[in-house]
Amino acid sequence: MMSKPTFGVIGGGSWATAIVKMLCENLETVGWYMRSNYALEHIKREEHNPSYLSSVEFKPEQLKLSNDINEIVAYADVVIFAVPSAFIGGELAKLTASLENKLIISAIKGIMPESGKLVGDHFHNVYNIPFENIGVIAGPCHAEEVALERLSYLTIACADKENARLVAKNLSSDYIKCTTSDDIIGIEYAATLKNIYAIAAGIAHGLGYGDNFQALLMSNAIREIKRYVKRAHKMKRDINGSAYLGDLLVTGYSVFSRNRMFGNMIGKGYTVKSAQMEMSMIAEGYYAAKSALELNESREKQAKIPIIEAVHCILYKGKDPKKVFKKLTEKLN
Amino acid sequence: MMSKPTFGVIGGGSWATAIVKMLCENLETVGWYMRSNYALEHIKREEHNPSYLSSVEFKPEQLKLSNDINEIVAYADVVIFAVPSAFIGGELAKLTASLENKLIISAIKGIMPESGKLVGDHFHNVYNIPFENIGVIAGPCHAEEVALERLSYLTIACADKENARLVAKNLSSDYIKCTTSDDIIGIEYAATLKNIYAIAAGIAHGLGYGDNFQALLMSNAIREIKRYVKRAHKMKRDINGSAYLGDLLVTGYSVFSRNRMFGNMIGKGYTVKSAQMEMSMIAEGYYAAKSALELNESREKQAKIPIIEAVHCILYKGKDPKKVFKKLTEKLN
Repeated sequence: MMSKPTFGVIGGGSWATAIVKMLCENLETVGWYMRSNYALEHIKREEHNPSYLSSVEFKPEQLKLSNDINEIVAYADVVIFAVPSAFIGGELAKLTASLENKLIISAIKGIMPESGKLVGDHFHNVYNIPFENIGVIAGPCHAEEVALERLSYLTIACADKENARLVAKNLSSDYIKCTTSDDIIGIEYAATLKNIYAIAAGIAHGLGYGDNFQALLMSNAIREIKRYVKRAHKMKRDINGSAYLGDLLVTGYSVFSRNRMFGNMIGKGYTVKSAQMEMSMIAEGYYAAKSALELNESREKQAKIPIIEAVHCILYKGKDPKKVFKKLTEKLN
Repeated sequence: MMSKPTFGVIGGGSWATAIVKMLCENLETVGWYMRSNYALEHIKREEHNPSYLSSVEFKPEQLKLSNDINEIVAYADVVIFAVPSAFIGGELAKLTASLENKLIISAIKGIMPESGKLVGDHFHNVYNIPFENIGVIAGPCHAEEVALERLSYLTIACADKENARLVAKNLSSDYIKCTTSDDIIGIEYAATLKNIYAIAAGIAHGLGYGDNFQALLMSNAIREIKRYVKRAHKMKRDINGSAYLGDLLVTGYSVFSRNRMFGNMIGKGYTVKSAQMEMSMIAEGYYAAKSALELNESREKQAKIPIIEAVHCILYKGKDPKKVFKKLTEKLN
């Protein structure tokens, strides 16, 4: 990787917008692809994203904006993907520009719904990107607080420590502190699973469980994550690190989390279909619950994951949330 | 211990009231001592505690009420102490009834301010109670949610598993699930330290830090607790268990926590004195910060506890919260 690499961000949502803001603190030019031509023109003219984090002001001359994904991928040495996992397949289908020798960073929390694979694995398998050139950006980090420049910590995970440090350096600022890690698999799974626990927290809230149970649920959730990622990739890691426990907490305790809101509706008696229709955005944890469960079931030695099983049972088998949670409470401690 | 032991609760606050309620689900008679004669008469006449959890209805004929601590201690085979740690010394000074052969259970979260000792150690040292007869009740559990009969989990810790189970059995009901543990020291320390982290969370909030930092803070706090209790009593424990992490979360994320409110005032610029005067109740974490720090400093091998040090520095050395937290953020990850 050259000493002053170019960066490009793929996505027009709130997380993508927050990442562009972080990069703009450090770089002369940031590449930015989004689908919406309207949003793009608005940013050029009004200097902010009309739909997400609209309080964040950009200098258009600092941005290389395009609604052609290939233009931004071709421009960037480091390509940061920040679209919901449900849309990444569609975006990648447009790709003709080569990803060779590029550093591919996933800021996507989730499993690819088409393949049930982690985004990192997908890039490795389909695009032959070596693992040293694949990285992950993990929280705990709400994009909304980046917009407000509230102090936030990120973890950049990559098998190649140098590459992790390079990304970390370019995201860091007065209000962003970055640490690095080489546990890309564990961090990617933890980031994915947390959305399922946020749905569980929402269901519990919707059913009338209180703060005492919420604390108990999160305490069980982190133990479940620990068991799950140990089966996925055994290595020495501190599951209480901010990229695992911190990320779980910021999502599980957030009343703004889409996953928690979705769960809350389910707990209050909405069907999955009607809850999804009520929400304009898709709750990532919905897909994650299916993929995570199936992946666990495909393993020879399965991790004990009663919370994920309960959520899956409610979302995919139409079981009564009240009864499923009553049973779940017997399995927690 | 006989098969049908008698139970007595010492204290008239919200946690004591919640414990009496739990016991009333299982026992014909529950002994209950409180200082206030007014509250006592009110309970007899109006069937609820006038000052705490007043929605909870009691059957006066089920209660053996007294404002003489010795009467209740003499009555009970199992004595549950549930007064703030700052007041326990004063209550114990009145004690003439023997504690011999009784099971002493501490529902007190804190260190005795006079001696800097855990409540359990105090009973062992001063009253010669063997450790098999000393136990602890730990959360995650807000008393207010017990009043609402919202599902809550308790951990009963005692060196003697049988004794732990005996207490667990008599507290359990439809809405209370109890597990047992033999890590009385670790659980008592965790229950004590969590109040310091709740103050830290309050200070951070008062200073304008957001949810991203709060998650980061809690993720660092549980690692700090782990290091601290490891020095205090090395044994195999899962720090993510509900009595440790769950209890930290229910307090650290509660906007009703006195400790968090106290911290919030400090963060907003109140002096310690004026914040204490504003609050009618004492924040347990205030004393805990001092005792916990001193105890750590007295050890040959000290645990790394930057958050506790920061809180101590602000509360006892009059340092500027903003500056102290700015420095603290450099030490967290």
